[in-house]
Amino acid sequence: MANITVNKTVHPFDRARLESLLSRRFFYAPAFEIYGGVAGLYDYGPPGSSLNANIIAEWRKHFIVEEHMLELDTTIMTPATVFETSGHVARFADWMVKDKVTGDVLRADHLVKNVLQARLALDKEARGFAAEPVVEDPKQKKKKDKTKVKAVKLEDATVAEYEKILAQLDNYSGPELGQLCRDHKITNPDTDNEVSEPQEFNLMFASSIGPTGQHPGYLRPETAQGHFVNFARLLDFNNNRLPFASAQVGRSFRNEISPRAGLLRVREFTMAEIEHYVDPEDKSHERFDEVRDLELELLDRHVQVAGASHTARMTIGEAVDKGVIANQTLGYFVARIYQFLVKIGINPKRLRFRQHMGNEMAHYATDCWDAEIENSVGGWTECVGCADRAAYDLSVHSKKTGTPLIVRQQLAQPKVFEKEVVTYNKKNFGKTFGRDGNALQEIINNLDEPTLLKIKGELAQGSATITSLDGREFKLTPDHLSIDRKTIKESVREYTPNVIEPSFGLGRIMYCLLEHSFWSREQDVERGVLSLPAVVAPTKVLIVPLSTGHFDALVKDVSTKLRKAGVFSRVDDSSASIGKRYARNDELGTPFGVTLDFAC
Amino acid sequence: MANITVNKTVHPFDRARLESLLSRRFFYAPAFEIYGGVAGLYDYGPPGSSLNANIIAEWRKHFIVEEHMLELDTTIMTPATVFETSGHVARFADWMVKDKVTGDVLRADHLVKNVLQARLALDKEARGFAAEPVVEDPKQKKKKDKTKVKAVKLEDATVAEYEKILAQLDNYSGPELGQLCRDHKITNPDTDNEVSEPQEFNLMFASSIGPTGQHPGYLRPETAQGHFVNFARLLDFNNNRLPFASAQVGRSFRNEISPRAGLLRVREFTMAEIEHYVDPEDKSHERFDEVRDLELELLDRHVQVAGASHTARMTIGEAVDKGVIANQTLGYFVARIYQFLVKIGINPKRLRFRQHMGNEMAHYATDCWDAEIENSVGGWTECVGCADRAAYDLSVHSKKTGTPLIVRQQLAQPKVFEKEVVTYNKKNFGKTFGRDGNALQEIINNLDEPTLLKIKGELAQGSATITSLDGREFKLTPDHLSIDRKTIKESVREYTPNVIEPSFGLGRIMYCLLEHSFWSREQDVERGVLSLPAVVAPTKVLIVPLSTGHFDALVKDVSTKLRKAGVFSRVDDSSASIGKRYARNDELGTPFGVTLDFAC
Repeated sequence: MANITVNKTVHPFDRARLESLLSRRFFYAPAFEIYGGVAGLYDYGPPGSSLNANIIAEWRKHFIVEEHMLELDTTIMTPATVFETSGHVARFADWMVKDKVTGDVLRADHLVKNVLQARLALDKEARGFAAEPVVEDPKQKKKKDKTKVKAVKLEDATVAEYEKILAQLDNYSGPELGQLCRDHKITNPDTDNEVSEPQEFNLMFASSIGPTGQHPGYLRPETAQGHFVNFARLLDFNNNRLPFASAQVGRSFRNEISPRAGLLRVREFTMAEIEHYVDPEDKSHERFDEVRDLELELLDRHVQVAGASHTARMTIGEAVDKGVIANQTLGYFVARIYQFLVKIGINPKRLRFRQHMGNEMAHYATDCWDAEIENSVGGWTECVGCADRAAYDLSVHSKKTGTPLIVRQQLAQPKVFEKEVVTYNKKNFGKTFGRDGNALQEIINNLDEPTLLKIKGELAQGSATITSLDGREFKLTPDHLSIDRKTIKESVREYTPNVIEPSFGLGRIMYCLLEHSFWSREQDVERGVLSLPAVVAPTKVLIVPLSTGHFDALVKDVSTKLRKAGVFSRVDDSSASIGKRYARNDELGTPFGVTLDFAC
Repeated sequence: MANITVNKTVHPFDRARLESLLSRRFFYAPAFEIYGGVAGLYDYGPPGSSLNANIIAEWRKHFIVEEHMLELDTTIMTPATVFETSGHVARFADWMVKDKVTGDVLRADHLVKNVLQARLALDKEARGFAAEPVVEDPKQKKKKDKTKVKAVKLEDATVAEYEKILAQLDNYSGPELGQLCRDHKITNPDTDNEVSEPQEFNLMFASSIGPTGQHPGYLRPETAQGHFVNFARLLDFNNNRLPFASAQVGRSFRNEISPRAGLLRVREFTMAEIEHYVDPEDKSHERFDEVRDLELELLDRHVQVAGASHTARMTIGEAVDKGVIANQTLGYFVARIYQFLVKIGINPKRLRFRQHMGNEMAHYATDCWDAEIENSVGGWTECVGCADRAAYDLSVHSKKTGTPLIVRQQLAQPKVFEKEVVTYNKKNFGKTFGRDGNALQEIINNLDEPTLLKIKGELAQGSATITSLDGREFKLTPDHLSIDRKTIKESVREYTPNVIEPSFGLGRIMYCLLEHSFWSREQDVERGVLSLPAVVAPTKVLIVPLSTGHFDALVKDVSTKLRKAGVFSRVDDSSASIGKRYARNDELGTPFGVTLDFAC
């Protein structure tokens, strides 16, 4: 045949064509479209549902089955007290600003990013470069087209400053974002009005549980807490052995301030999350050597804080050995995430791992690497986070509920050591301190060894003073307690595990995958193709009988055989031409075709 | 071997043993257990998640793949206006009563049921029969045990009356339930206090969308509306052909008043719903003959309204032919539901189909059959509903949004007929009626033929009068409009499809399946077994090396081979005895075992 050679890059990527295809073939569409839609809510149609289900199935194989993880399915509705404990009620928030005239609400960091990027683009134009496509959403674009802004050249120093701000944008606090708006005269681009000081807006959807309205609840913004509150049961299920991981695929909700980036920023989304529990004193991973030589593009926090954004290519082994990535387990998962994304069809050249900067990190994390996938809507976009949450979550839930969320490790060799031990004279202690007694004992029990030794010395001289949490001083004498050095023998070690958390935003990954898979045939730019890998393609095989009516029995036979082999096929026996039927099929990303023809 | 014969019924079913097994092996557990739990919320642990996922996979095969349904994945968060249109804001409610002293909230119909069932049980005891186990939840039982009620014999007439009330319990309105409480002195069994008049309580969880709090939303109580609002896109995807079905598996939420029946009544649950769109004038089903001879136990509405609850055994063909089940499509799905449930392990002897009574039916349904599965917690419990929703949903959404949700059928033979047609004199009409004009025209356009003929006659006499929706009268004359008989030729038929909806509550099905699968080994009542069919069992194969250490390579080899064949296996290489390892495995419902032994 004439056109057997395929050139996938002859036509430049055109997002409008892709979006038209995705809408026309109902991969997804705005939810409640006939009601005018709701920003940040999307429904998946048949091919989108299938693609999503296949990505999930592959994720299950790649992680849960391959690594023997324990699967969970926990509730979305969560009583408020759980998220108060986890810190989400206080801190799971974004900074928003209001247009001082219209009251329109904008996310502060997005505002700064969009305005500075637009200015840089106009500067380039003024300097005679072709403007790079500015990352922005279609709605804004439309509005701007009306009042087409003239190219304006900036001072060289200003360009450098803007670039530095953009490189560390995720590191700014709310007040800093407010300062940036004032310093750089950043206004609402839709209206040119000034914006208010940034305010925090909590991203959780609130509701209440039960008929009396007295039990506040939130929709989970991540599935993670459902894992942590079940830790004791999971550990028991795993015969009390560590390390192990729990895994969950499920819906989460974030009440985004002003979502306008398609599937990249939505208010309801499917996550796939792994919580891998590990000994804090030994974060090695037994399968690390299997991935040691894998090369990745890494963008560490030092580069970003210095205002740059160039990546370094190195093996995972090198990154862990040099301390760029904190430990083997974190490194192992970074590598496994890379393998998964490439397997389902993400272009490895448009995939990098970026480390979070200090202020950017979620309140629970101690180190975090994002898998960022490049796309035309959001630029480099976080699609998977891989965080070391340390012992944060298990500790706070344990403390709040009084339930031990710890591992008891039988020591092969009992640990023998000496230690200062406090013995109370309960009667005298109670008599002197009354209802303050318990609080004081808790303070004393938590003192470190040097402080205990100091008090011991003071007691030997007659008395010592300690201060309660509310600042009152109490005098201790040898009548109240004694402190003695004793030999302790421990045969069990108790510790709170640390948690390494790979967390996948499946909708973002799906959108990037669709962009990376899209091209148009050389001879016909209108004929869009999705080259999806067979493993995730919604339909694996298209069956096309050459003419209608003549092949019904054969069609049934072929499709039954494929179904029995576990291969999902579709028949297109419409009266359209073969060419048209193949073109429709190109659009759905079906990798294989079977044409039923008359025998020669 | 000695004990190869298996007698599964030697020990009577003991729910406490089953519940202990399910909790111990973490099939599921109360969500947020370490926080004291939340009524009606449950988390699935590893075996429960797997079992649930396998039931869903089988459901997809049995329905979506086998019947070529279009899968959807729509959002849970829904703007209020959608549920206002669908009628859920006004009518998706249960009747609740409050304890007049403590303010405790109870569901009215459950209160009546529990109290009357308890009285009947005590009556039986007084008559010298062994009391049948009363269906009630463990919490209530505990409270009652403290104040052990004495057996009281009832009048024969009272027994008959109670039984009649129970048989049609689902048919009572709120005021009727209130009357029953007064007539039969039904009080809160926990406190013996009187209860208030029943009030409606809407079961949807409310929230609000976006940062301003001005956009009210609800969590969907069913996935169905997500299908209906996408009907136009689905029809287009299906090349405008009918019948077809959309299908969706997803989470739904109902803020139950006082859930205390384990997985049978929860506030968050996974549903699997099918919406099958069909021509209202032809509800035949092309595959009906494949199920025509299937025999089922049917309990129709006439039997229930007469106060009885005996089923009739008949084939689906007979049921449809006799009009017991309204049409072939409804009958086809009833049969397919039966096949699915039996395939995954539901005991067919504990499965019946019950028709809804008039008042019981949801506001959108015209006929409805529930698959009820018998279990020890809820007696005969609705696990699948199969409703004919007629054109209700598509009509109301279409009317509200102005979007046509209809099918346009090209007629082979154009339809030719005569009809009275109204022609307006727009100028005069507008001049006379001004801003009322449009509303009047809409009224006139919707008049039926006899009324039009009457007005035509009156106009011939000089004038006619019509009444607006708000009751004002308007005088029409031949200057405003003329009515003439014309010949109409229609080559396209437009109609709103009817919807047949099989809707599955997967948690309820899973619980019943666990009950039906549970038994204890004859020689050891403590050794509980779950006989789950291989198709849904969480793990298919247990691999047990006879001794630890010696078989590592072989274990890896066998488990890799099984994984490659798509068979999920688990290794138990712990130091426990073979017997203990098999027993643990009995509890997890693993159907096959591979013991790795030394070659003789």
